[in-house]
Amino acid sequence: MTPYDGYHRRTVPPPDRELTEVGPGTPGGEYLRRFWQPVAFERDLGDTPLRVRILGEDLVVFRDRRGQIGVLHLHCAHRGTSLEFGIPLECGIRCCYHGWVYDVDGRCLETPGEPAGSRLRERVVQGAYPTHVFTGLIFAYLGPPDRRPDFPMYDSYAVPGLRLMPAATFALPCNWLQVKDNSMDPVHTAFLHALSSGYQFTEAFGVVPELDWMTTEAGMVYIATRRVGDLVWVRVCDFMPPNVHQFTREIEDASQAKSASRPVVIRWAVPNDDGQTTNFELAQVDPAWGLTPAEVARPGFGQSDDRPYAERQRQPADFDAQSSQRRIAVHDLEHLASTDRGVIMLRRIVRDGIRAVARGEDPAGLGHGKIIRTFTQDTVVRVPPAADPDEDRRLLRATGRDTVNSR
Amino acid sequence: MTPYDGYHRRTVPPPDRELTEVGPGTPGGEYLRRFWQPVAFERDLGDTPLRVRILGEDLVVFRDRRGQIGVLHLHCAHRGTSLEFGIPLECGIRCCYHGWVYDVDGRCLETPGEPAGSRLRERVVQGAYPTHVFTGLIFAYLGPPDRRPDFPMYDSYAVPGLRLMPAATFALPCNWLQVKDNSMDPVHTAFLHALSSGYQFTEAFGVVPELDWMTTEAGMVYIATRRVGDLVWVRVCDFMPPNVHQFTREIEDASQAKSASRPVVIRWAVPNDDGQTTNFELAQVDPAWGLTPAEVARPGFGQSDDRPYAERQRQPADFDAQSSQRRIAVHDLEHLASTDRGVIMLRRIVRDGIRAVARGEDPAGLGHGKIIRTFTQDTVVRVPPAADPDEDRRLLRATGRDTVNSR
Amino acid sequence: MTPYDGYHRRTVPPPDRELTEVGPGTPGGEYLRRFWQPVAFERDLGDTPLRVRILGEDLVVFRDRRGQIGVLHLHCAHRGTSLEFGIPLECGIRCCYHGWVYDVDGRCLETPGEPAGSRLRERVVQGAYPTHVFTGLIFAYLGPPDRRPDFPMYDSYAVPGLRLMPAATFALPCNWLQVKDNSMDPVHTAFLHALSSGYQFTEAFGVVPELDWMTTEAGMVYIATRRVGDLVWVRVCDFMPPNVHQFTREIEDASQAKSASRPVVIRWAVPNDDGQTTNFELAQVDPAWGLTPAEVARPGFGQSDDRPYAERQRQPADFDAQSSQRRIAVHDLEHLASTDRGVIMLRRIVRDGIRAVARGEDPAGLGHGKIIRTFTQDTVVRVPPAADPDEDRRLLRATGRDTVNSR
Repeated sequence: MTPYDGYHRRTVPPPDRELTEVGPGTPGGEYLRRFWQPVAFERDLGDTPLRVRILGEDLVVFRDRRGQIGVLHLHCAHRGTSLEFGIPLECGIRCCYHGWVYDVDGRCLETPGEPAGSRLRERVVQGAYPTHVFTGLIFAYLGPPDRRPDFPMYDSYAVPGLRLMPAATFALPCNWLQVKDNSMDPVHTAFLHALSSGYQFTEAFGVVPELDWMTTEAGMVYIATRRVGDLVWVRVCDFMPPNVHQFTREIEDASQAKSASRPVVIRWAVPNDDGQTTNFELAQVDPAWGLTPAEVARPGFGQSDDRPYAERQRQPADFDAQSSQRRIAVHDLEHLASTDRGVIMLRRIVRDGIRAVARGEDPAGLGHGKIIRTFTQDTVVRVPPAADPDEDRRLLRATGRDTVNSR
Repeated sequence: MTPYDGYHRRTVPPPDRELTEVGPGTPGGEYLRRFWQPVAFERDLGDTPLRVRILGEDLVVFRDRRGQIGVLHLHCAHRGTSLEFGIPLECGIRCCYHGWVYDVDGRCLETPGEPAGSRLRERVVQGAYPTHVFTGLIFAYLGPPDRRPDFPMYDSYAVPGLRLMPAATFALPCNWLQVKDNSMDPVHTAFLHALSSGYQFTEAFGVVPELDWMTTEAGMVYIATRRVGDLVWVRVCDFMPPNVHQFTREIEDASQAKSASRPVVIRWAVPNDDGQTTNFELAQVDPAWGLTPAEVARPGFGQSDDRPYAERQRQPADFDAQSSQRRIAVHDLEHLASTDRGVIMLRRIVRDGIRAVARGEDPAGLGHGKIIRTFTQDTVVRVPPAADPDEDRRLLRATGRDTVNSR
Repeated sequence: MTPYDGYHRRTVPPPDRELTEVGPGTPGGEYLRRFWQPVAFERDLGDTPLRVRILGEDLVVFRDRRGQIGVLHLHCAHRGTSLEFGIPLECGIRCCYHGWVYDVDGRCLETPGEPAGSRLRERVVQGAYPTHVFTGLIFAYLGPPDRRPDFPMYDSYAVPGLRLMPAATFALPCNWLQVKDNSMDPVHTAFLHALSSGYQFTEAFGVVPELDWMTTEAGMVYIATRRVGDLVWVRVCDFMPPNVHQFTREIEDASQAKSASRPVVIRWAVPNDDGQTTNFELAQVDPAWGLTPAEVARPGFGQSDDRPYAERQRQPADFDAQSSQRRIAVHDLEHLASTDRGVIMLRRIVRDGIRAVARGEDPAGLGHGKIIRTFTQDTVVRVPPAADPDEDRRLLRATGRDTVNSR
């Protein structure tokens, strides 16, 4: 290779538009719209409306006094005033400017300045999206009405002994796909997270787990296996297309054999637009941990832009690593390695889904009303080491795949 | 209508460029330039120049030591340094960089670094606009010099017993036309202003006045008539093209018959550029009210972006309703109603003016040196009610039109 | 000329792209890239990397623990994470995300997540630029590797009795060329700097020195000569293409004859991009002055945007005059005068260099390994006045040129 070769490497090609664009009518945007997407936590919805931006659309989220949740286009169908200044009523929301009222489904209920007997309101529609509230998280469906899927139910929503709770939300000023790339990239945890915890690189560095990736009914998983004497700790995390992943919160100490533990965190990376992403999390919490809702809702270290730049430089974390891959990461400039196999698979799943939707087909991951099986877990199994290191690595991988397959 | 139809209604067409663009050479910009436009209050002009942006042009306003007001292009004709850093002289303004001096009419008076006897200055011109100061408000004429109109004099500038004073100025981050739409939209006062004063909607809501609109010599008026027993309160407000309107400040209690009362506020909505507008007001003030100039200059409640977002959500006012109709309101998405007849008429007057100018003709509203008759007033007349409600509404409208016609 | 002619002078043509653009592949950008450019002071480089923008490229500057300075493309060749969050190592820098390591020349030294024996790193290159540190100022060469010039040495880098020290850095939100125009424009000092020191214009104003400009081996100079009785004070300042100039810091009192004094300040105007420029200075300092490094590093009055607007209006200085000539000054609107001869010559030198590079030739000013002779000085010589003022002006100019030619 040529040293000091910056002059010949300075050209920055455009991002992969098919994979990264999210606006109305774009291939990626139409794909993402085929799934229910979180738009806000109920806890953030007071008695005034909440203005949000989702998939490049400006929307208002509100709860009327009957408790119905509405997700409407932001600008009033009458003359465009923002409904963020509207007043939630017993039924629907009233625009502040001329008092027109819309129900949560977009029907116009009143045009009070019009003469008695006016039937104008029958011809007026405010853009609206169906909503579904699950565990305090408000989802909306922004796709074509005749393709509205059932709300997908992952098996991880019900775990014996644990309680599913609303957890954190935090935003990154970058495209959603690089946020999701990170979910199938377990190697980064050995570096970035060691750094952010103050760990120093040493000669002994590099106890990276044995890694593997598999496609599953739900999407895909990564499997990280680590040997601890006669025991093997198997850690599995899911990616569920288009933009969901889940992982276990706790670090296993692997001191004894143990069946699958599933205190998962489920995280959606919702595009606000091409260059801004908001994460929403639900979490399975063990009541024995004694966490308050506020504690469960707190973002993890370094997930959001809440630290001074000097500290972010010394202890970089997820926010810094992901959001600094340019506003929209440029795949053409990447040098993908064997550890990026998960990222490659994830992008393939997304691209396949985008193209399926473009062809008029259903994308993978809709669930179709059945409980969706997922695989996230920490499991410790007794598997004595193989004779030599290469053989043992094969054994670790086989143990990992068996763990997923036997679930 | 189809509920939850946001997917089919999400496309946002572009604004009506003919009506909303204000820059040099645009149809709307050339129309607005045929009228004297306010650029600043004298009270805001100290001994340093004032940088302003008017109709998409960067300008400097200053007063030289002789008291002449200059409105010049911002950037010096020599090498472009901003004259906001210039020094007002006995006559004209000196650029800070090389000391060139320009008179208020743009003539170059000095190029002091040049050799004695240099005639360079005779070939140098700084772009300048004629000015006219009226009641402490500085107007400039940015149009073609050979079409410069007389400064228009409205009959409301002189009202017996009242004193015309400089009043408020405040800016909105949106196009000028939606600010002006509001002036011929009296229905909003029953909703928006009831809201901002904390009024709650009730069953009895909807005592909207009987409304009417008429074209006039000056432009157009709205007429709001309300019955109070045997009395009828007639409220009239003017729109004077291209971007002026006036209204009475006080709310009539209509307890007895009363001839026309005209304590008007006259308000110009001056485009800074396509997406920003500055209002300037003059007001007729009754000396008996004992208001100080600072009190007269104070913007009304909710006219400017000076309140916290949470308060604006709970008590939305004009600033919020107008500026949130998108940066430039999109007429193609509107659903205009019978109460929008005034808005429709106003836009028609503006479009007619734009097209007249495009054809090389004079637009309506120039005045041509005559006092311009306007109609803003509160009048209370004795008119016993008609037999039935529909008949009485016709009577109210007839009373309103008579009031305007008999002025 | 026509007064009040703003309407016919309001069109703003685009800037001269050939002279003002600096990005990769632009004629001006390729010209500037043929020269070593300062990117940061060593004093501003701590143990974390420094993110900079130079000639439209995002870069990271760092010092590894061996003390080598690296200037690399900001985004990691692996998956694009910013190296501003990287960790300087004994040798090179480690990306925070997956631990890849790059040497200062861009070679990839480690890809630690890859399997033992992986040769991936041999195919990975991080864009890098050669560096040279001189007097605490870090220079990089962003041009074509096969055209890398010797680091240019000006004779002013070594002046007997003086010490060259790192001096100020300060940024302007405008194009670099108008910053440099200022360097060959000595007339402005009589106006702008008189203003900023509170000097008032009087009848006696205009004791502008006799001015002259000459091309030199190094680029060009301006010569300002002033008569003080039988003495003539000759002040010479250099412009060294593409974007360097130097001047003497002290004001001569010219009370007696004196040979060339050269306490120069050398200043580079480095484009961050087309609309932002950072100046870097080195300064010759007399140890007898007793200045601390912090005092030498302090920008002069009014060089940066560190003053309130109201003060900048009353005492405008270099920052205000230069940065307000529009973001990129528009030459087509200028009215150049005899005092702008230096500006015209400077732009000619820059344009000639741009066109030479475009033709594949070397631009003037590279030095080619020889000490570059410069002429900046204050000299006082005894030259009795000529018989009449015009003759004396010719004598002053001749004295100035003799001073330059005899150096």
